[in-house]
Amino acid sequence: MRTSIATVSLSGSLTEKLTAAARAGFDGVEIFEDDLLASPLTPEEVRARCADLGLTIDLYQPMRDVEAVPADVFARNLRRARHKFELMNRLGADTVLVCSSVDPLAVDDDALAAEQLNRLAGLAQDFGVRVAYEALAWGRHVSTYDHAWRIVAAAGHPALGTCLDSFHILSRGSDPRGIEDIPGEKIFFLQLADAPLLAMDVLQWSRHYRCFPGQGGFDVAALVRHVLRTGYDGPLSLEVFNDVFRQAPAAPTAVDARRSLLLLQEAVGAATPPAPVVPTGVAFAELVTPDAAPVSALLAALGFARTARHRGKPVDLWQQGEARVLVNTGPAVSRDGTRLAAVGLESPDPAGAARRAEALLAPVLPRRRGPEDVPLDAVAAPDGTELFFCATGRPRLPDWRADFADVPHDPPGAAVSRIDHLALTQPWHHFDEAALFHRSVLGLRAQESVDLADPYGLQRSRAVTNADGSVRIALGVGAAPADDTVHAQHVALATDDVVAAARRFRAAGGRPLPIPGNYYDDLAARYEFADGELETYRELGILYDRDAHGVFRHCYTHTVGRVFFELVQRDGGYRGYGARNAPVRLAAQHAVKGFTGG
Amino acid sequence: MRTSIATVSLSGSLTEKLTAAARAGFDGVEIFEDDLLASPLTPEEVRARCADLGLTIDLYQPMRDVEAVPADVFARNLRRARHKFELMNRLGADTVLVCSSVDPLAVDDDALAAEQLNRLAGLAQDFGVRVAYEALAWGRHVSTYDHAWRIVAAAGHPALGTCLDSFHILSRGSDPRGIEDIPGEKIFFLQLADAPLLAMDVLQWSRHYRCFPGQGGFDVAALVRHVLRTGYDGPLSLEVFNDVFRQAPAAPTAVDARRSLLLLQEAVGAATPPAPVVPTGVAFAELVTPDAAPVSALLAALGFARTARHRGKPVDLWQQGEARVLVNTGPAVSRDGTRLAAVGLESPDPAGAARRAEALLAPVLPRRRGPEDVPLDAVAAPDGTELFFCATGRPRLPDWRADFADVPHDPPGAAVSRIDHLALTQPWHHFDEAALFHRSVLGLRAQESVDLADPYGLQRSRAVTNADGSVRIALGVGAAPADDTVHAQHVALATDDVVAAARRFRAAGGRPLPIPGNYYDDLAARYEFADGELETYRELGILYDRDAHGVFRHCYTHTVGRVFFELVQRDGGYRGYGARNAPVRLAAQHAVKGFTGG
Repeated sequence: MRTSIATVSLSGSLTEKLTAAARAGFDGVEIFEDDLLASPLTPEEVRARCADLGLTIDLYQPMRDVEAVPADVFARNLRRARHKFELMNRLGADTVLVCSSVDPLAVDDDALAAEQLNRLAGLAQDFGVRVAYEALAWGRHVSTYDHAWRIVAAAGHPALGTCLDSFHILSRGSDPRGIEDIPGEKIFFLQLADAPLLAMDVLQWSRHYRCFPGQGGFDVAALVRHVLRTGYDGPLSLEVFNDVFRQAPAAPTAVDARRSLLLLQEAVGAATPPAPVVPTGVAFAELVTPDAAPVSALLAALGFARTARHRGKPVDLWQQGEARVLVNTGPAVSRDGTRLAAVGLESPDPAGAARRAEALLAPVLPRRRGPEDVPLDAVAAPDGTELFFCATGRPRLPDWRADFADVPHDPPGAAVSRIDHLALTQPWHHFDEAALFHRSVLGLRAQESVDLADPYGLQRSRAVTNADGSVRIALGVGAAPADDTVHAQHVALATDDVVAAARRFRAAGGRPLPIPGNYYDDLAARYEFADGELETYRELGILYDRDAHGVFRHCYTHTVGRVFFELVQRDGGYRGYGARNAPVRLAAQHAVKGFTGG
Repeated sequence: MRTSIATVSLSGSLTEKLTAAARAGFDGVEIFEDDLLASPLTPEEVRARCADLGLTIDLYQPMRDVEAVPADVFARNLRRARHKFELMNRLGADTVLVCSSVDPLAVDDDALAAEQLNRLAGLAQDFGVRVAYEALAWGRHVSTYDHAWRIVAAAGHPALGTCLDSFHILSRGSDPRGIEDIPGEKIFFLQLADAPLLAMDVLQWSRHYRCFPGQGGFDVAALVRHVLRTGYDGPLSLEVFNDVFRQAPAAPTAVDARRSLLLLQEAVGAATPPAPVVPTGVAFAELVTPDAAPVSALLAALGFARTARHRGKPVDLWQQGEARVLVNTGPAVSRDGTRLAAVGLESPDPAGAARRAEALLAPVLPRRRGPEDVPLDAVAAPDGTELFFCATGRPRLPDWRADFADVPHDPPGAAVSRIDHLALTQPWHHFDEAALFHRSVLGLRAQESVDLADPYGLQRSRAVTNADGSVRIALGVGAAPADDTVHAQHVALATDDVVAAARRFRAAGGRPLPIPGNYYDDLAARYEFADGELETYRELGILYDRDAHGVFRHCYTHTVGRVFFELVQRDGGYRGYGARNAPVRLAAQHAVKGFTGG
C-alpha cells in the first residue's frame, strides 16, 4: 500500500518537510494549507519539488465550515472553494479534505448539508477534484464517521466521498466495525493517528497529543483492517498534531513516522518484514572513554577483572560472572568523557535481527573490523547507542570474543553474576520513538512509563524487556529539551548478595553514592526489618523497595563521565527498578559535589 | 495573616527551597516528606536552618492511606505514624496532613474512619502533634471537604481537625459556601492552589498543572473569604505541583508565589498595598544597542527623526507623532546585540505606581541619573525589561524629556502616530508570572492566551492592556525552555494609513519582511477586496485580518539584533494582534536569510 504523511506532522519550512518525508521513503504527502501559505514557493514550484522528490500530493487540507449554512454564507463558501480548486489544479492535487463544520451559523440539518456538499462536489468535479468529507470529533452537528457517511450517501455525488481519521473515530469511542458498511470506493482517504489514552477535552487532545500508530493507546491496526475489508485502496496517511514533533528535527520524526506505518502494515498483513529476533541476554556493555584509568579502577573495585584485550583495537574486556564490560579508548574523545556507547545483545540469529532492524529503517552500522575479526551485525538506536547482535559461546554461531586475546589476570570477584539492566538517556523529542523502536525492532515488551521527581524537573522512564527479564533496558528522558542536569546513563549489575557486593566495593576503595539518613528513618517507619538489617543498609547506602512479588535492594557507585553503576539484588520476582527510590538517588547525585563530573 | 509555602512548590534541594522561601518573605513552610527524605540534613539541622531563616515549619505532609482499613493494616499504620510523630518532634513541626485514603483495602465506612482517626489523633496528642485530615479530590471513599469534615466531627478528638485545599474543593466543583459551617478552630490548615480550567483527569490535573492563585481559573479569593469568616487564623499556604515550576529556578518562583499571596490577601481585604496606578499610554520604548547605526537607519526609514539627545548619557530620542524611541549605546554590549530594554509608561502618579510595584515585590531599579536629571521611578518586570513610570508634558509632574536637549533635525514623517503595542519575549518558566505581574503591578487586563504555530515549535502569546487600548503589551513565550529559534521582540507603530507608511518605508530604503504570494491567494479566496487593493497589499507585504469589530492591516520590518518593528492600522475597533497571520510572519522571518541576524 502507498504511504503518505501530512506536512503538519513535521517541523520546519514546507521544503524541509517534503525533503524529510521523501528521504524517509513516503510515497506521498498531504499538503496542510498553512504550510503552503507560509511557503515562498509557488504552487507550481511545490508541485515540481514533489515530483523531483518522487512524492505525490495525495490530499490538500483542510477546507473548513462549508456545509449546512444559510444560502448567502454558502455562496461565499463556494466562492472560496473555487479559489481553492484552482489552487489545487496548479498544485496537482486531486482530493480535498472537507471537515464537518464548527461554524456557529451551521444548522443541524442533514438534508441541507447533503445538498450543499452535492453542490460543492459538482463544482469540484469541474476542476477534476474529489471532495473527502470527514467528521471532526468536535464537529458542531456532525461528529461521528457514520453520520458523515450518511450525509455523503444522501448527497449521492460521484465526486463526493468520505475521509476516515482514526483519531476522530477512536477518540469518540465509536465502534470501527461499522466502517465495513461503507463501500470502499466511497472512502476517498484514510488518515491515521494514535494518541495516549487521556481523559481530556477532545479538541486539545487532538491538537497537542496525537502520536504515530503504535505509540499511543488506540487499536489503530484493528481500524485499518476494517477499512481494508471495504476494498479501500488509497494511501495510509499519517496526520499527527503534536507539540513535541513541532519542535523536533523533521528528518528523524519522518523516519519514526514511516517505521510506525511499516509496523502497522505488518500488523494488518499488508507487509512482511523479516520477523523479530528477540534477544536472549546482554552479551556486553561497551564504554567509550578518553582515559581508561578511572573507569578501570571503578570496574576493579566492583570485582571485575580485565580478562582480555581486542586483537586489533584499544578495547579491553572486563568480566565478572556473565557480566562483561568493554572499555574502548579508540574513538574520538567526546565532550561527555566516558559514555555508554554500545550494547551487545545476545541473539539466536544475529543476521536475522539485523535484517529486521534494517527493514524497519534502523541505520545499519559499518562493520568497523579488521580482516580477522568476527563479523558483527550492528545498528544504531534512536539515541545513537550502537546495538550489536552477537553470540557468546554458542554452537554454530561465531563468538564475538574470538576477536579478543586473553591477558593474565587475577580471578574476578564472585558477587556480580550478570548485567541486570541498562539505563539509556533518550533525546527529549524521541522518547516515544525509542520505545516503539525497541519494541518493534528488537521484539521487546514495553512497560508503563513512570514519572521520576528529580529536584530540578520531572523525568520519565519506561522499561523494555524480553519475556524472562534477561534483557532489560530502561529508557529515560529529562524534563525538557534543555534539561542537562542529569544525562547519566548506567549499567545495573545483578548480584545475589548486594550487602557483600557493596562491602567489597567499599573495601576496594570504591565510592558509593551516600544516601541520607532520613531515607532510612522512613524505611523504619514503613517496614519491619530483622535486627541490624536496616543499620547495614544505612552503613552501605543500600536502597530498599518491595512490590507484590518480592524485594529489591540496590546501591550506586560514583559517576565517571556520563556513566555510573548500580548493584541490584532482586528477590522473589520483584519486577521493577526501584522507581520509588529514584528521587532520593537523583537528589543524592546532585548533592555530591563532583558526582556527575569526571 | 501569616504566609507559608509547601517545599514541593519549589525546585532544588531542601536547602535551596527553604532559602528561596525565606528570601521571598514567607513566614513558614510545609515540609513535603520526599524533600526531607532526599536531604542530607538531619531533622534537627532542618529545624535549625528554618529557625536561622526565620521560617516556622507549619505542616509536615503528607501521611497517606491511614484510615478505614482492617485492624491489622491499621496497626501497621499506627506504627508508621508513631515514627513520623517522633520525626516531627525532632523537626519541631506540630501539624501533620493526613490525606483521605486511596488504598484499595480502605472500606466505605465513615464510622470506622472516624474511630481510626480518633485513635491516630490520640497517639498524635501524646507527641504534641495535631492531625489535619483532608479530602483528596480522588480519594477512594472520601473526596469532598464536607465529607471529610463530617468524619472529623464524628471522631470528636481535640487533636483532630480538617485541612482545606482550594484545588481539591474547586476542582470537584464543590460549593465553598459550606465551609462556613465548619468551626474555625477545627480548620487546622488551609492550602491554596489555582489551576487552569482543564477538562481532564483530576489526579493528572492536580499533579502537573496547579498554579499560584490568580494565575488559573478558580475563584480562590472567594473560597478564602468563606474560610476567614469561620475565624480561621492559621497561615495561607501555597501547595502547587507544577511541571514547569519543578524545573524553574527556585528564587523567582518563590517571589512569584509570594506576590500571588499578597494579591490574594488584598482581594480578601487582609492586606492593603498601595492601589494600582494604571498607565495611560506609552511614553517611550528604549532600545539598547552596541551600534546605533543600523537601528537609526531603520528608524529613519520609518519616518522617525532624531529630535533630542540626553544631556548626560549616550541616548538619542527619536520621535514621530507621539511615538518615541530611545536609542541607548551606553550599557555594556550584550551578546544579543540590539534589544528592547526598557519601556516608559505614561503614569498619572509615577511615585504611586512605583510604590505599588515595590509592595508587590518588583525589584526597584536604582535611579541611574546625573545630579540634574528628572527623577524617574523604575522597576524590573519578570523578563528583566525596565519599566519607567513617567510623564510627558503634563502639569505638576516632571517631564522626563527635560533630561534631553533638542538637536537640529528635519521634521519627522506623519505616518506613525504612536506606539500601538510592544511585544516582549518571556522566559519560558515565567509566562504565567509575567501575566500576573502586569495585571497586578500595573493594573492591566489580561486577554486570553493564544497558540501561534512557528515552523519550529508552538509559541504562546497573551496580551495585557489598559481599558482604552492606549497601553498594549503582548507577552510571548517560545515552545520550550531551549527554544532559541525566535527571541525577537518588537515595537508596533500605529498608523492611520499603513499603505502610505509601508510605501514610505520602502522608498526610504527600508527592507520589509517579504510575505509569500500564496498568502494573498488565500486572502482572495477568503475575502472580497476593492479593485487593486489586494495587489497593493501583495506588493507591500501587508497582512490582513478581520474580527467582529473591524479590520487590521499590518506589515513588518527586517530585524536588527533582537528587535523588529511592525506598522499597524486598526479600523473599526479591531481588538486583536493579527494572531491568524503569525504563522506566516514567523515562517517568513525564518525564511529570510539574515533576518534574525544583525
